[in-house]
Parts: sequence; structure tokens; C-alpha cells
Amino acid sequence: MLQQNTITLEHIYEPVQSYLAKVEDRILDLLSTDNELSSEVIRYFFKSKGKLLRPALTLLGASFGMNDLAPVVSVAAAFEIFHSATLIHDDIIDCAYLRRNYPTVNTKWNSQIAVMIGDFLHDRAIKAFFNSKNERLMASALNMAGTVCDGEILEMKERHNFNLTEQGYFTIIERKTAMLLATCLESGAILAGFPDERVFALKRYGMNFGKAFQIMDDCLDIIGNEHEFGKTLGADLEAGTLTLPVIRLVSLLDEKEKARIYSKVKSGFAQPELGDFIRLLEAHGVIEYSIGKAKEFTEYANLELSIFPDSPARQSLEELLGYVIQRKR
Amino acid sequence: MLQQNTITLEHIYEPVQSYLAKVEDRILDLLSTDNELSSEVIRYFFKSKGKLLRPALTLLGASFGMNDLAPVVSVAAAFEIFHSATLIHDDIIDCAYLRRNYPTVNTKWNSQIAVMIGDFLHDRAIKAFFNSKNERLMASALNMAGTVCDGEILEMKERHNFNLTEQGYFTIIERKTAMLLATCLESGAILAGFPDERVFALKRYGMNFGKAFQIMDDCLDIIGNEHEFGKTLGADLEAGTLTLPVIRLVSLLDEKEKARIYSKVKSGFAQPELGDFIRLLEAHGVIEYSIGKAKEFTEYANLELSIFPDSPARQSLEELLGYVIQRKR
Repeated sequence: MLQQNTITLEHIYEPVQSYLAKVEDRILDLLSTDNELSSEVIRYFFKSKGKLLRPALTLLGASFGMNDLAPVVSVAAAFEIFHSATLIHDDIIDCAYLRRNYPTVNTKWNSQIAVMIGDFLHDRAIKAFFNSKNERLMASALNMAGTVCDGEILEMKERHNFNLTEQGYFTIIERKTAMLLATCLESGAILAGFPDERVFALKRYGMNFGKAFQIMDDCLDIIGNEHEFGKTLGADLEAGTLTLPVIRLVSLLDEKEKARIYSKVKSGFAQPELGDFIRLLEAHGVIEYSIGKAKEFTEYANLELSIFPDSPARQSLEELLGYVIQRKR
Repeated sequence: MLQQNTITLEHIYEPVQSYLAKVEDRILDLLSTDNELSSEVIRYFFKSKGKLLRPALTLLGASFGMNDLAPVVSVAAAFEIFHSATLIHDDIIDCAYLRRNYPTVNTKWNSQIAVMIGDFLHDRAIKAFFNSKNERLMASALNMAGTVCDGEILEMKERHNFNLTEQGYFTIIERKTAMLLATCLESGAILAGFPDERVFALKRYGMNFGKAFQIMDDCLDIIGNEHEFGKTLGADLEAGTLTLPVIRLVSLLDEKEKARIYSKVKSGFAQPELGDFIRLLEAHGVIEYSIGKAKEFTEYANLELSIFPDSPARQSLEELLGYVIQRKR
């Protein structure tokens, strides 16, 4: 079912690896503060390393047109900070207790601290975008920030909505996930001074890659290994958030089964019931179906790369499409 | 104790009243979205009118140098939106159930919605600052946003800290409250194209006015009339937030009394105990002391106005200093 050949992120990041190391330091620089509580929470959060996918995409986007990526490092770091702010607020919203195998900020401290630290990170990210002194990049980043927020609110609104369509789901994941990844690539391309054709192609690659990424994330929420994935499993179901596998399942069930599942989705799943439900999803092949959809989006993404010359950066973006389908965390 | 002559905000706002009406429409324009849930929450929140103090200060700041204030309306509206975002997040942090006599967003919906709507408002405000195309204003607004957030986190850190000094308290209120009010005036002055001398004078006026404003707010949290004030009374005490009257009280108590109060502050006050504590505060004259401090700050603020020619705007800023001391909501 899943591809067996293992592509690693380390390999994909190879063309920009030296700058990615600088990004990690820059993140802490951009977040420096004399507020001891903030510093403590920030050190704690960034101690557990994320995938740094957003900075990597920013750097890869620029690396088609620039040899020295030093001027991109701050913006790349700002995207990781922005992303971290949304994660910290998401974890409040999802009442999640685990993130990257550590207790979430809302668990280790409380929701109130998590609200404010999220705001703090968000503001520092926006400040770093502004300090790039690139008006087009700033406008794009602000537009993205609004869209991400809108996607989150839309997702909350559609919770427990048993009639959510695949199209409705795609709209949500475009806004809450794909838009940020697309804007990373777009921003790299803007900083590299690319013509519009390339800027738009990289942005579309990002939108399609991003949708594939979120679909796989939603599958992993159901079939992942909690330790490997580093997040609470079944969190979406427990919160009543319908993702592609569940939306597909609903379309396959008879009326009686549908009504039974509907009542579960409405009330929110309790942990003990999750196992049965996951077996039902697997029995109907909806995980394979969802992975198939994710693959479709990676194919659209791949088409966008055709206008770029063969290069390590292009190879990385191609390999990333394979990686997202096989990823386990 | 309180001044008896009644200055109304309507009177103070007179020189900019026609533009303030435009601000109210612009707020809803800047927040328009096709997201039904967001629209519903936004309509609900802005249905109960705030004092519009931040837009009024922005307009008054500009009105020394401009006759047509139309170019200032969006930025003035953005400050009210920014302020509203902080209120919505504050109400989560304080677990407040009442704001302007209506249930808070976290009460009427839930904390999760409140997190995201706050983020949405915040982003739209920043976008409007950016759309002013004034780089100095944008830099100042972003700096202010970071400072406000920092002030909030500092306040949380100092909760239940019985050793918080007056100076520590002033630092918190400078950051969380005065900075925003000062930036409104500063931004108006920047948009009016004032020389630095006037920009800085108005900003300093705002910092001093803002500290007086917050001290009075903290007094009203203790001695206000819940219906008139429109907020839950005693919320600071319940949350363990030490404000000037309490800090002053602590400095006046003997060791035994201090220890007794300390244990209360540490555990957080329960509503039934609040009445007794408020009577203790009144008995030690700490409310009068605090109002005296607020008056001092209004006097510093007043000095800053001396470089401005006599005009309706200057009169309004002078009267505002009297208003803040006598205000009941």
C-alpha cells in the first residue's frame, strides 16, 4: 500500500542544508526577548525539532535563482515561526496534549500562556517579513496569514457537519495548510527575483503539494503510530473534524450505517470506540482512496516543475512528492 | 473623591465626530469575509459599541495638521480592530464572562473560536496598517503589537507575585495598555506629516494618559458598578493579578496581615471573599492613593500639549485627562 523505497528529508534538504542550519539559529535570534517566561516557553517549544519543511521550501524556491541564500534565511525562519504560532494555537483548539512527543504548551503551562505565546510568535514572524523590505513578499505573507486563519475557522464551523463534501474539505485544507506551504515557495521565488511565470508555477506546486501533505497527515491521524507520528492519534475524530477518509466512508455506507456513525460523529468519539471505527475505515478501503487522491495532487504538483531546468533543487522538489506519500511522521 | 463635573466622551470627540462615524463602517468593511461563522461572531462583538477611544485618539492626533481626515479613517479603524483582538484574547486569559454587558466570545461560543477570531482580527488590523503604505507607521504598529503581547505575558508571569513593585506594575501597564494608546496618537501625527518634535510629544502624552487610564481601569475593577462598567468586577483579584491598589495595600500592612492576604492572593480569591477584601482596600485609602497616581500621570501628559496651538483638538486632549479620572466605564 505504502511505497517501500525510503526517501529521507535529509536527502531532500541536501541542496539547502547549510542554510537550514542557519535558519535554526535565526529562529531563536528573531524570538529573543528579555521576558523570562516567554524565553522559557520558546526554548521548550523549539527544543523538539520540527521537520523545518517551510524554511526548506523557502530556500529551495529561491535556490533556482540564487547562489548565496543568506538573504533568504530570515524569511525562511519567519515562516517556521509563523507555522509554530499556528501549531500552538491549534493545540489549544484541539485540546491536544502531545506535539513532537512532548507535552503541548497548553498542557505544560496552560491555554492562556499558549494564546499569548502564539500571538508573540505570530507578531515576530510578521515583523521579520516586514523587515525583508520586499513589499510584494509582505503583501503575500499577510494575505496568507488571513487565509490560514480563515481556513481554521472554516474547519471549526464544519465540525460535526456530516454533509461536508470532498470539495468542502479541499477548500479547508487549501486554506489552512496548502496556502502557507505555497507562500514559502512563492516567497523564495520573489526574493530570487524570478519572472512571474516561475513565481506562479512554484506557488501552484506548493498548493498541490500542500493538499497532498494534509491528506496524508489526516490519514496518519487515523493509521499512524503515535510514538513515530509524535502526535495524539484520532484527535480529528475526537474533535468531530471530518477528514477525507471519513467523508469517503460516509459516501459508501447505507442509510442505517450512516445514521449510526452520524450519532457518533455528532457526540464526538470516545477513545475506546476509536479502534472499531478505524477498522471500519480500513475495511472500506478509504485510506487507500485518500492516498490515491493525495497522489493525484502530487502529480499536478510535478507538472509545475517542467519549466525549471534540471538541478538539485528541482530534484529535491520532485523527491518531496514521493516523500509525502510514504511519510510516517 | 471623584470629580463631580461630568465631561462626556461625546463632547471630547466633537472635533472628529464626523470621521468617527465613518470609522464604525470602515471597521466592518475591513473585517468583511464570506466565512459565515466569522461574520456572525464579528457582528455580535461590534454590535455592543466600545468607547472608540483608540480611533478617536488617532483622528485627534492627525487633526492638528490635517483638515480632511479621510486618509486616516482606515488606520483609525485598524487600531480599534487591533484593540478588539486583544480584548477577545484577554477574555480567554481572564476567563471573563462579561464584556460591554454581553457574554464574551469565549462564553457565547468557546475559547477555541475566541482564539481564532482574535487571530483573524489581529491579521486584518496589521493588513490595514500595511495598506496605509506608510513604512514608519507600519514599523511603529508592529513594534507596538510586540510590546502589547510582551506586556500581557509579563502580567501573566507576575500573577500571584506578592512582591510585585509599583515600578513592576507600571512596566506592565505601559506595555499592555499605554503603548497602544500612544501609538494611535503617534500614527495620527505621522499621517499628518508632523515634525518629530510633535510626533514624540503626542506619543509621550499617550504613554502618560495610557498609564492613568489603566490605573483607573484597575480601580474600577474593584470599586466599579458592574452594570455601568459592563465587565465582571474583581476579575483581576480572582485571577491573582496584582494591581496598584493591592500593591499599595501590601506596603501598608503588618507582617501578620500581609501573610493572611498573601495566602488569599496565592490561591486566588473566591467571589464571596471579595467583598471583605474590597472593604479592606477602601479602609486603607489605597483607591484614593491610586487615583492620585493616575492624576500625576495626567499632569505629565498635559505638559506635552504645551507645544501645540490652542485648538479644538488640543482642548479635547486636555479634557480627556479630566475624563479619565472621573470615568465610570
